[in-house]
Amino acid sequence: MLSIDRTLTINQDRLKADLEALASIGATPQGGVTRLALSNEDLEARAWFADRIEEANLLIHDDAVGNLSGILPCANQHARTLLIGSHLDTVPNGGLYDGTLGVLAALECLRTLGEAQTELPFHVEAINFTDEEGTWQSFFGSLGLIGGLRASHLNDSEVDNSAFRVALFRAGIHPIEVLMAQRDPETLLGFLELHIEQGEMLHRTGTQIGIVTAVVGRKAYDITFLGEASHAATTAREKQRDALRGAAKFVTAIHEMNETDYPTGVVNCGNVQVKPGIYNVIPSEALLRVECRHPDENTLDEMETRMLELAQRCAAEYRLVLQTRTVLRRPVAVMDEMLRNTIRAVCAESKLSHMPLISYAGHDAQILSRITPSAMIFVPSVDGISHNPREETPWNDVVNGANVLLHTILRLATP
Amino acid sequence: MLSIDRTLTINQDRLKADLEALASIGATPQGGVTRLALSNEDLEARAWFADRIEEANLLIHDDAVGNLSGILPCANQHARTLLIGSHLDTVPNGGLYDGTLGVLAALECLRTLGEAQTELPFHVEAINFTDEEGTWQSFFGSLGLIGGLRASHLNDSEVDNSAFRVALFRAGIHPIEVLMAQRDPETLLGFLELHIEQGEMLHRTGTQIGIVTAVVGRKAYDITFLGEASHAATTAREKQRDALRGAAKFVTAIHEMNETDYPTGVVNCGNVQVKPGIYNVIPSEALLRVECRHPDENTLDEMETRMLELAQRCAAEYRLVLQTRTVLRRPVAVMDEMLRNTIRAVCAESKLSHMPLISYAGHDAQILSRITPSAMIFVPSVDGISHNPREETPWNDVVNGANVLLHTILRLATP
Repeated sequence: MLSIDRTLTINQDRLKADLEALASIGATPQGGVTRLALSNEDLEARAWFADRIEEANLLIHDDAVGNLSGILPCANQHARTLLIGSHLDTVPNGGLYDGTLGVLAALECLRTLGEAQTELPFHVEAINFTDEEGTWQSFFGSLGLIGGLRASHLNDSEVDNSAFRVALFRAGIHPIEVLMAQRDPETLLGFLELHIEQGEMLHRTGTQIGIVTAVVGRKAYDITFLGEASHAATTAREKQRDALRGAAKFVTAIHEMNETDYPTGVVNCGNVQVKPGIYNVIPSEALLRVECRHPDENTLDEMETRMLELAQRCAAEYRLVLQTRTVLRRPVAVMDEMLRNTIRAVCAESKLSHMPLISYAGHDAQILSRITPSAMIFVPSVDGISHNPREETPWNDVVNGANVLLHTILRLATP
Repeated sequence: MLSIDRTLTINQDRLKADLEALASIGATPQGGVTRLALSNEDLEARAWFADRIEEANLLIHDDAVGNLSGILPCANQHARTLLIGSHLDTVPNGGLYDGTLGVLAALECLRTLGEAQTELPFHVEAINFTDEEGTWQSFFGSLGLIGGLRASHLNDSEVDNSAFRVALFRAGIHPIEVLMAQRDPETLLGFLELHIEQGEMLHRTGTQIGIVTAVVGRKAYDITFLGEASHAATTAREKQRDALRGAAKFVTAIHEMNETDYPTGVVNCGNVQVKPGIYNVIPSEALLRVECRHPDENTLDEMETRMLELAQRCAAEYRLVLQTRTVLRRPVAVMDEMLRNTIRAVCAESKLSHMPLISYAGHDAQILSRITPSAMIFVPSVDGISHNPREETPWNDVVNGANVLLHTILRLATP
């Protein structure tokens, strides 16, 4: 017979002290933190987390890709495991909440449940995933857990692989063993991730909790426009084949297409590289990296098709040759409906305003959703600022988020 | 009493042999030449030129900026000097005619005049100018000759100045002495430069000789669009400040403005540099280098004004801040009317088809025109190709050009 205390709340002083402790590991002069995956700071944060796990009398577990967990075990050792957590690594000079909040709230939930001697019908595991931010390989830890790592993740032409291997070894991760981190989906009940929104929807609408419906799918391409380098001033206009003109027209047009036709889509052209890059020579080559995101898989496919057609038209207009290469393809991750309903019920019961949200940023939950029911609880980001020392979430919202996570666990225990 | 042989022609076998000799100094596998100013190959070409000058019993002269000349002196040592020539330096993997033809034809004219014992009322000086192509500083030699060098030419933030100084010393040029190369305009009669067109107007229209009316003026700017780096997917559209969108819109618009409103104008955007240049971060900075050229000074000013207004509008459209910096400002160089009329009369007498032309490329003649009457004789470039191993001028056209140069000198001697 389960004993569930529906009035349980997390210990907010302890959560606050933990957030402050993490803010000091890799602190930057601007008030942010730099804890790049596998760096000294990241290793220090893991050691700190391990100490807290042991202090809380939780079982400690680390796997072959460096994911580190504290487990509140169920009396029935054959029970399945509910994973909760996020990541402690950050981007350079990132904020204090992105990822960190999800891990610390998960830890605090386990401590609260453990102290209350709550008997749950499943194991609960608070997990810190390795390299969510992609210092080396985005979602390295969560991909390892679901069995999604490929040889290419350790041999990526855009990464300094020998430095990556050294960093892995230093963290006690052996490249040849990373496949062993794969977990059997049958042993998992699901995954819950508390995270800051990183957008401004909740903050702008004054909503306390966001319940993620889907994490957008992403497609990124390298698009190269090839023309001919020639003297800028003496080449007849009708013979000019200016690669940059094709790229420039495309940048303008792809954003306009997105704005007009895809209100929930995202397009970004983050870089252009021009050759030969000399001011009085017509550019022969312009390489653009373009990314599309959309919460609907079919629409994302349509965006991709139209983007490539548009690039072809821009190339043709300036007599250019087009080359395209896929650099990223990540499907839409739909969050589990039962878990979302449970979170919604918790919000209703707790009288917290809530709304469904699409996540435009990537999260470990999108990876986990490939093998186990997954859901995300968002709390507001002031002005939507993230990946920045100015990242902020009001304290009440932090506490609300952690308590929603706690009570979602409790509700899952009493269907 | 002058004795002028109006049937004189240059020795085309000797000119051909000279062109072949130069083609072998710095020859590239593609059939072009690389004789970067002050390089070993350039110094070898100068030594070769000095040998030819002495062989032809001409006076040899070099000045404090490395300009190297052969002089056919007039009996009257107080006579003025008609300069004729061009440059032996090339761009990397350039063609066999650009610059070289002008120097070798000048040498050949002096040899022809000398052998015919032609008595001229002025000195004629066949000159090779240092670094026309701007390996270090465009027009370094011709600027030195007119007294146009400034301290900034030896201390340019875009040049490796210590390497430049080493290269100068190696060539026997002492930086502190370069101002001594300045010539008194009173001693000069004018300057004539034979050059390939580097455009396709003569070739396309089947015209044998081009008589340059003006060398276009040029204005180059660094235009920086400044936005804000933020997460590409979570930043609300109305808050995005994408520097690359401003730059891309500008690239398209400035070319369209030029095509529509400035039929004889040239615009080039040769490079864009984007920061931070990460595919999933909205660009915070896009630096464009833009160049405008026009044969009319007032119209060039108008283009400049409109270009800056356009940049401002593109910046405003995407909520960006604009920074602009002049990097080059070179006025329109109008060629001397009397010299042009003389060349035209020579063409008419020689039954050579001819046309007035604007030079869109820069030439030493534009620098010389600031202190002395200057003119240019263009011969056809096949398909307008230049700065390329495929640069070509049919042999008959080469001979025609050299003979027009010769007879222009003769006509100037008998007004």
